[in-house]
Amino acid sequence: MSAKRVAVIGAGPSGLAQLRAFQSAAAKGAEIPEIVCFEKQANWGGLWNYTWRTGLDQYGEPVHGSMYRYLWSNGPKEGLEFADYSFEEHFGRQIASYPPRAVLFDYIEGRVNKAGVRKWIRFETAVRLVTWDAERRKFTVTVQDLPKDHCYSEEFDHVIVASGHFSTPNVPEFPGFSGFNGRILHAHDFRDAREFVGKDVLLIGTSYSAEDIGSQCWKYGAKSITNSYRTAPMGFKWPDNWEEKPLLQKVDGNTATFKDGSTKKIDAIILCTGYKHHFPFLPDDLRLKTANRLATADLYKGVAYVHNPALFYIGMQDQWFTFNMFDAQAWWARDVILGRIQVPEDKKVLLADVEDRVAREDAGEDDHDAIEYQGSYVKELIAETDYPSFDVDGANEAFFEWKKHKKQGIMEFRNHAYKSVITGTMAPLHHTPWKDALDDSMESYLRVTVAAAE
Amino acid sequence: MSAKRVAVIGAGPSGLAQLRAFQSAAAKGAEIPEIVCFEKQANWGGLWNYTWRTGLDQYGEPVHGSMYRYLWSNGPKEGLEFADYSFEEHFGRQIASYPPRAVLFDYIEGRVNKAGVRKWIRFETAVRLVTWDAERRKFTVTVQDLPKDHCYSEEFDHVIVASGHFSTPNVPEFPGFSGFNGRILHAHDFRDAREFVGKDVLLIGTSYSAEDIGSQCWKYGAKSITNSYRTAPMGFKWPDNWEEKPLLQKVDGNTATFKDGSTKKIDAIILCTGYKHHFPFLPDDLRLKTANRLATADLYKGVAYVHNPALFYIGMQDQWFTFNMFDAQAWWARDVILGRIQVPEDKKVLLADVEDRVAREDAGEDDHDAIEYQGSYVKELIAETDYPSFDVDGANEAFFEWKKHKKQGIMEFRNHAYKSVITGTMAPLHHTPWKDALDDSMESYLRVTVAAAE
Ligand SMILES: Cc1cc2nc3c(=O)[nH]c(=O)nc-3n(C[C@H](O)[C@H](O)[C@H](O)COP(=O)(O)OP(=O)(O)OC[C@H]3O[C@@H](n4cnc5c(N)ncnc54)[C@H](O)[C@@H]3O)c2cc1C
Ligand SMILES: Cc1cc2nc3c(=O)[nH]c(=O)nc-3n(C[C@H](O)[C@H](O)[C@H](O)COP(=O)(O)OP(=O)(O)OC[C@H]3O[C@@H](n4cnc5c(N)ncnc54)[C@H](O)[C@@H]3O)c2cc1C
Ligand SMILES: NC(=O)c1ccc[n+]([C@@H]2O[C@H](COP(=O)([O-])OP(=O)(O)OC[C@H]3O[C@@H](n4cnc5c(N)ncnc54)[C@H](OP(=O)(O)O)[C@@H]3O)[C@@H](O)[C@H]2O)c1
Ligand SMILES: NC(=O)c1ccc[n+]([C@@H]2O[C@H](COP(=O)([O-])OP(=O)(O)OC[C@H]3O[C@@H](n4cnc5c(N)ncnc54)[C@H](OP(=O)(O)O)[C@@H]3O)[C@@H](O)[C@H]2O)c1
Repeated sequence: MSAKRVAVIGAGPSGLAQLRAFQSAAAKGAEIPEIVCFEKQANWGGLWNYTWRTGLDQYGEPVHGSMYRYLWSNGPKEGLEFADYSFEEHFGRQIASYPPRAVLFDYIEGRVNKAGVRKWIRFETAVRLVTWDAERRKFTVTVQDLPKDHCYSEEFDHVIVASGHFSTPNVPEFPGFSGFNGRILHAHDFRDAREFVGKDVLLIGTSYSAEDIGSQCWKYGAKSITNSYRTAPMGFKWPDNWEEKPLLQKVDGNTATFKDGSTKKIDAIILCTGYKHHFPFLPDDLRLKTANRLATADLYKGVAYVHNPALFYIGMQDQWFTFNMFDAQAWWARDVILGRIQVPEDKKVLLADVEDRVAREDAGEDDHDAIEYQGSYVKELIAETDYPSFDVDGANEAFFEWKKHKKQGIMEFRNHAYKSVITGTMAPLHHTPWKDALDDSMESYLRVTVAAAE
Repeated sequence: MSAKRVAVIGAGPSGLAQLRAFQSAAAKGAEIPEIVCFEKQANWGGLWNYTWRTGLDQYGEPVHGSMYRYLWSNGPKEGLEFADYSFEEHFGRQIASYPPRAVLFDYIEGRVNKAGVRKWIRFETAVRLVTWDAERRKFTVTVQDLPKDHCYSEEFDHVIVASGHFSTPNVPEFPGFSGFNGRILHAHDFRDAREFVGKDVLLIGTSYSAEDIGSQCWKYGAKSITNSYRTAPMGFKWPDNWEEKPLLQKVDGNTATFKDGSTKKIDAIILCTGYKHHFPFLPDDLRLKTANRLATADLYKGVAYVHNPALFYIGMQDQWFTFNMFDAQAWWARDVILGRIQVPEDKKVLLADVEDRVAREDAGEDDHDAIEYQGSYVKELIAETDYPSFDVDGANEAFFEWKKHKKQGIMEFRNHAYKSVITGTMAPLHHTPWKDALDDSMESYLRVTVAAAE
């Protein structure tokens, strides 16, 4: 057992959950395998590790970061709190419900600093290729140490892929793009809303990126926002200088034409068209191919790869639940590796599990059902490990409230507060309405000037 | 012999030169190996295949293209003309000396269409890893068919790396970048100067990208251009709204501070800081590590990899000469593979060749010497193969003239014309001064309205 070696690819929230899961078992006296986590960035935190860079980084690697300045949590923090490390433990008190990126980064880091797992991570090391030797039942992981410009390979008994799936942009082309006289970018490359002050901005898409990037641009002074939908408009009560249009048909110089024949002069186009599961380091026999959905293809219990259950994927689902779901998955994968949980040997059983999950997700009708579906998935995994159980239904409630608050006022929903399902404490209201809070620093956010919410 | 297999990585000017070299031998009756060219883009032409995309492409691959709209050749076409396919053969007549990108793309394509080598190219196929089996003396090339999302491996006797080295940006960071309130981009991601109309643009760097991107922005209506130098200013006679500053020290909000203590308000920063030789698909034993210079490290005759001469690199030098130099190299590599040229077995001899080239480059004092150095390198290779010999000294002369014309007027040098060293014909003057020619299409460029030059 102790000679086993486990590779974790990525030190974002999912990879860090995996490290914390093993460390927690060790702290309770279990013998654990040797853990090596490969992370291509210079620091941990995954998407939460902000970078001004876009495109390719200082080593020529695709920039992982998709986050931007002034990003605040788009859901209540009460939906993602770690069951083993509350916001109150980290900040010494309860804080408001929609923290900016820097605050959540600090929180993510707090838990793993406390666990002391940084020593397992090889930073600035990009995984180039993973192969599987079926006879010897070993993975060979080939990596590149970027600062040393040195490639090497090591063998592992298990590989856990935690490389994220909101980093490789899905970038459709529309007629006229090669002649458009302004910037065309994907949400992945968006960094600072102030670049668009005074501009007429066109967004393609209707999901979180479109909603939030549009709101940022509006908040920091864009002249107008237009968002173009393929399926249906978002339907929020938008400010006066924001309109929703059916799908873009073409651009001509600086004129956009939409499906209803209407046109608009625009200065920049931001493609908020989602992301791709992208694993350029995995060959056909190991590479997950799935749509971005709650019940992914080919993952038993949403975690073990059905075609080779020595391989695990963490965090590959579309996400209502995030940090706590990654935890539930990481604890579960750990227990398989520690021999505490058995994965059925019969591949048919694994495939049936996947099929069943897909059918149950498909049976849901709306966001409410989807939240409950993912909540019950989290409960299912937690029940099989020693991850501290918590009030998942309470977290669901925070999500339901959040949806209601967004409907009431899309530029005001972040002014609300919710109750922690870990500590039971109500969050304080933030001292400044979101639309007036132009400073997104941690110092500014943590400043206490308003009493706890009702 | 006929069972030999050769992999060519990349179908830009260098890779296409290699295909044409083999086809030319076959046309003269030689038996040639099986050639497979892997190209990750959907079309050939390399950098000359323009794309509006930046960052990652529709398959999540790094976008190769570094060219932008309105790009015109930065050197006279008389310096790069194919010896086996003149501009006159392609266009049916002589054309002006500084063609826009689309015109040169058409010319590049004309030769390989005529040669009929497209069938050897597997498009939209990215090379992921190349390994060498020393015992069996075979390379294994692992690639991904991008539209099919399918990985596979094949064996080859030779690999020719022609993947370019002006695609992976060198992106330094300056203090304050993560708080800058505007766009920061590398030249690699620059696409349309009209994005910067009315803006105060800061460029870092003093080489071709800085000079040409600055000139584009100026031509299309930027408010001001500032370029910041690390070593020395470019020293051209700039327009009134262009100034050169010593190195950027920091940015603060929208204020840039330079080494001389001066400051300037800026809206956007374009890093024209060059490119990296980047081969993420090559392990340590095969990966060229070199500075961007005329005498590269580790390449015998500038082509055969000294640590494994079954591996070749085309076009890895810094470039005064381009297309005709790639041809000279490709013909030479072909003749090694066909057994017509022997590479010495003694590695010491190969290393000495490299050392000698480095010393000779280092002995040069200025651009004049550098041009002559690379010209004589081209002559050296051509003399060893059946590539049509041409008046390299005449091409050198075109470069010397070009340098002089740039000194005379940096916004006017493209209004000059030179004499072809292949056909002996003088180029006509272009019908419109470059600074007034806002339409860079092939149709516009080829319009005949002015008689041939003096
Ligand atoms: C713009 C945006 C905003 C978001 N906002 C929220 C929010 O407000 N609340 C919320 O809960 N969730 C949010 N999310 C969802 C986000 O996906 C999760 O919060 C979380 O970051 C996912 O963690 P992860 O570890 O699975 O992936 P990531 O955070 O993407 O981390 C993956 C890690 O793997 C590394 N990696 C990738 N490839 C390699 C390789 N080949 N070799 C080595 N290392 C590699 C990366 O560098 C990275 O560190 C947001 C997502 C986006 C895109
Ligand atoms: C902005 C700019 C302007 C320039 N202007 C001029 C000019 O005016 N005149 C001039 O003579 N030269 C110019 N150049 C120089 C240019 O380098 C050459 O003209 C020429 O394009 C080099 O050809 P190449 O084939 O070596 O590389 P590239 O043109 O870069 O082609 C390399 C090819 O390899 C492919 N490739 C890369 N990696 C992989 C992989 N892993 N798998 C499969 N395929 C891969 C790429 O997709 C690409 O098609 C310019 C360069 C730049 C950056
Ligand atoms: N904290 C924050 O504030 C914040 C901000 C941004 C993002 N995020 C997170 O980031 C993740 C990704 O969100 P996302 O919005 O980027 O992606 P997403 O949820 O996958 O949504 C993709 C959107 O793109 C549209 N689309 C895709 N292809 C298209 C095409 N060819 N033409 C037109 N439209 C197309 C889709 O439209 P259809 O509906 O028609 O398919 C959909 O609206 C989520 O987890 C989200 O929570 C968080
Ligand atoms: N057709 C065209 O018009 C056109 C346009 C653009 C480019 N090109 C081609 O593209 C190729 C690349 O040219 P390029 O200009 O991009 O690259 P380059 O010739 O390699 O020049 C790099 C520049 O960046 C500077 N630099 C590098 N690191 C720096 C740092 N940390 N701080 C400050 N400055 C730094 C260098 O300054 P130092 O001198 O101080 O080292 C140099 O000025 C060339 O072949 C060129 O012909 C052609």
